[in-house]
Amino acid sequence: MKKLSDLGERKAIKIIESIISQGEIPVGIGDDCAALELNDDYLLVTTDMIAEKTHISNSMKPWQIGWYIVAINLSDIAAKGGKPLGLVLSLGLPSKTSESFLKDLIKGADDCASFYNTFIVGGDTKENSEITLCGTAFGVVEKSCFMSRMGAKHGDVVAVTGSLGKAAAGYLSLENDMDDEHILKNLFEPKPRIFEGVALSKEKIVSSCMDISDGLSSSLYQIKNLNKIGFKIYKGKIPLSQNLKEISEKIKDINVDDYFLHFGGDYELLITLSKQNFINAQICLETIGCNLTEIGRVTKDSSITIIEGDVKEVLPNKGYEHFKNNNVL
Amino acid sequence: MKKLSDLGERKAIKIIESIISQGEIPVGIGDDCAALELNDDYLLVTTDMIAEKTHISNSMKPWQIGWYIVAINLSDIAAKGGKPLGLVLSLGLPSKTSESFLKDLIKGADDCASFYNTFIVGGDTKENSEITLCGTAFGVVEKSCFMSRMGAKHGDVVAVTGSLGKAAAGYLSLENDMDDEHILKNLFEPKPRIFEGVALSKEKIVSSCMDISDGLSSSLYQIKNLNKIGFKIYKGKIPLSQNLKEISEKIKDINVDDYFLHFGGDYELLITLSKQNFINAQICLETIGCNLTEIGRVTKDSSITIIEGDVKEVLPNKGYEHFKNNNVL
Repeated sequence: MKKLSDLGERKAIKIIESIISQGEIPVGIGDDCAALELNDDYLLVTTDMIAEKTHISNSMKPWQIGWYIVAINLSDIAAKGGKPLGLVLSLGLPSKTSESFLKDLIKGADDCASFYNTFIVGGDTKENSEITLCGTAFGVVEKSCFMSRMGAKHGDVVAVTGSLGKAAAGYLSLENDMDDEHILKNLFEPKPRIFEGVALSKEKIVSSCMDISDGLSSSLYQIKNLNKIGFKIYKGKIPLSQNLKEISEKIKDINVDDYFLHFGGDYELLITLSKQNFINAQICLETIGCNLTEIGRVTKDSSITIIEGDVKEVLPNKGYEHFKNNNVL
Repeated sequence: MKKLSDLGERKAIKIIESIISQGEIPVGIGDDCAALELNDDYLLVTTDMIAEKTHISNSMKPWQIGWYIVAINLSDIAAKGGKPLGLVLSLGLPSKTSESFLKDLIKGADDCASFYNTFIVGGDTKENSEITLCGTAFGVVEKSCFMSRMGAKHGDVVAVTGSLGKAAAGYLSLENDMDDEHILKNLFEPKPRIFEGVALSKEKIVSSCMDISDGLSSSLYQIKNLNKIGFKIYKGKIPLSQNLKEISEKIKDINVDDYFLHFGGDYELLITLSKQNFINAQICLETIGCNLTEIGRVTKDSSITIIEGDVKEVLPNKGYEHFKNNNVL
């Protein structure tokens, strides 16, 4: 009999998809965020669970754990262009958990929700053998503004918000005992692109969108597979985090490519849109202080090529997968 | 420094409430189901987490575990009169979990959602050291039909749907090695009163409502405290489960009162409403095959009296509380 450790997360999700009775909803199982019709709007719902042993670094402060569980849920709302309506937060905690840990955790969660003008409206508190947090965020977006993962077209520009490798820089600083609070913040206090998602969705110019929390390569492969298109990505155009540049120079024998191409944890948006619309999107995001950088183009053939000077290579798909011990980094 | 085991769940929730920035929403933290304004409707959201060591009996089949997590979430929607829109389900599973366990669990969850004409629209799958399931259900109810915990008035009838002690009968059969699949179903496969909640809410006749999943006494105390009223409850009128009657006769030295007054797990509705409206509610529920039984009255003085013949006693508040080892049974 197969176990989850043999199957891996993706196969497990396939099994779940094959059993669930899917209603006639626009976006359901298989996407990180469900969309349900609600008059002229879509109700967006997304859930994420994290646990002490697999997702919560010992170096995280309780406040950061609270911020994190709210932030990663909001990111899936951001990718659809949604305005958050609220969150519920379930806490599975060992009975030995201290009152101060609980207080700091809740403060972090509340601060993150407040930062994005939303609220924690409910939750559940239960005993668990390890710290296990489950957040569910819900939001709303006008149907005509909804940003889907479907719709990338041949010739479209591929672009990312902000810079990549920030979370990886935090990870590297931890692994190499170079703890720097500022660098670690990028890993432990992600800032989902809620305001940017809302602004972009109102322009109605994006042909496809998702967040790149699983890493750039993994996200590109998901968009590729859904849309039956390909990508050419110009490595030199990818906006590298300054922290990653600096930290990678201090560490011997690391392949920095792995960290900005494959490492997850950057809650940026990956979008596709026409060349003309790209300029408008850049202007739109600039007004709220966010860079948007073209990193390549959508192609007809269904492969993802990474280009550096004259060198063209197929981009490997090396995202992290739960259950399997196959994290490449 | 205090730990959760010192505080108990209720004090922990008080601490959480004191930290969370509550938006101007009709029902938020402190209720099992949040309500948010959405045009003429309320969006209802509720979340429940269960874990292997504290909530999942070894005797439960994987299919039943899946049914259970969906059912207990839907019950909170039922108590508000909501029509379910969907659920998301997060699974925290040990990597040694078998494929067949996963399949049966998902089938149970899907069967429960389908039974109530709703769908699992998304979720998350993560590694955890114990089986930890977190469901979030969302639903919708017209504002004018919303059933609140607030509103019980002096003179109102207090009534319950179905019968009480069904889950307790299952628990007793397990504890006394009298496993009977039929009796255990009442404990492991609860049937939330979704159809009944929707039917009652449309009548707009209920002054307050909640589910009694935490036990009758605990629920009465919650309604009492929120509404600053009291209750007189006629013990002889409480509709006892036939299973509980039969099983309690077979077991020596048990106080059957404890099991129908205090034991949780019956996902019935506790409602208050005027005497005139009670008759209408009875007729309304009878047409969908559900009994509604008057068990007492709302009183002005803020105590809960349980009456049996000439004996009047204050009803103890003996609900189960997480973290503290104070379950009375």
